[in-house]
Amino acid sequence: MKLVAKKPAPGPRDERGVLAARILHAARDAFAETGWAGTTIRSVARAADVDPALVYHYYGSKEGLLDAATAPEPSFLARVAATWTVPQAELGRALVETMLANWADADIGPFLRAVLQTAAHEPKTREKLRLVVERSLMGVAALGVDERDRQVRSGLISSQLMGLALMRFVWKIEPVASMGDAEVVDAVAPNLQRYIDGDLTAR
Amino acid sequence: MKLVAKKPAPGPRDERGVLAARILHAARDAFAETGWAGTTIRSVARAADVDPALVYHYYGSKEGLLDAATAPEPSFLARVAATWTVPQAELGRALVETMLANWADADIGPFLRAVLQTAAHEPKTREKLRLVVERSLMGVAALGVDERDRQVRSGLISSQLMGLALMRFVWKIEPVASMGDAEVVDAVAPNLQRYIDGDLTAR
Repeated sequence: MKLVAKKPAPGPRDERGVLAARILHAARDAFAETGWAGTTIRSVARAADVDPALVYHYYGSKEGLLDAATAPEPSFLARVAATWTVPQAELGRALVETMLANWADADIGPFLRAVLQTAAHEPKTREKLRLVVERSLMGVAALGVDERDRQVRSGLISSQLMGLALMRFVWKIEPVASMGDAEVVDAVAPNLQRYIDGDLTAR
Repeated sequence: MKLVAKKPAPGPRDERGVLAARILHAARDAFAETGWAGTTIRSVARAADVDPALVYHYYGSKEGLLDAATAPEPSFLARVAATWTVPQAELGRALVETMLANWADADIGPFLRAVLQTAAHEPKTREKLRLVVERSLMGVAALGVDERDRQVRSGLISSQLMGLALMRFVWKIEPVASMGDAEVVDAVAPNLQRYIDGDLTAR
């Protein structure tokens, strides 16, 4: 079904949220797969099965669409915040488990993919990635002996989690892509735990 | 200086290598910055200050240019092979040091960047990334108790090294981007060493 919304009129009341969400999902896939330059309002509209005018109506421009596609999902921020309340000695495991759960989530997974994939090319999205990293991985915890130590530890945690996410979910490099969740948690958690509370200067 | 090469005639003998290398460097930057869809033969030619016909002459097509831009640098493969000859107990440090040295290298750094940045969107380049990972990080070492264990360990090493490279050199997220090399080595090497010879099933 194709719908065209005229400039001043909003979309049909009950369908508005549904259509906007459908466009957003199509946009995330498109930006993730073909990047900023390869994505057009027209291609997103086609994938979402709506008229391009409706995409403009809801999101204003291609920039607005990218903004929306890479804006952190509230459920993502909530899960991550909850993870940081776990006792520090169990945080390594909890962080890997949350990362795996986030990528498996039907809303959060495509959002993370869109951010990681467009961050490569778009300075604006790189800034968004930085915010996602800072808010979700670096913003909350009381790690380390001072502020710089906290940031270094958070940054190292991010480097492991993001490399793992890329190998497993985006680049799909084996055997990391098909390892069982429990095996991944056991293998990676102690390394995160060292970044959380280990000695980072020891040789 | 602009040069146009006619189809059957090769470029000037003494300039051939120089111009081909200049085009290759421009192509790596272009693919890394604007991705496959955003890169054109024309834009690469402009950046390299040559005629587009010369780009076609040397590389045949945009596909050929991407192939060349993401083909592993021989010096990269040589360094990585040398690293894997280091005694296993020192391999964690050696791997981080080699990664840092590779990204600092004027030829290898842009090649790695081009592979990582285009791997996001291009199935063909994702395959290339897989080859780079397998040959350079997973293909050589005698790790683990059997072939799958070896591959799991190599994959986990790659996940840490690639996440670190992206944070530090591509996304430039602080403080990881500006940490001293020695600090990075001390912080990350023990984690790689655990992937090399540690118990990955312990809780």
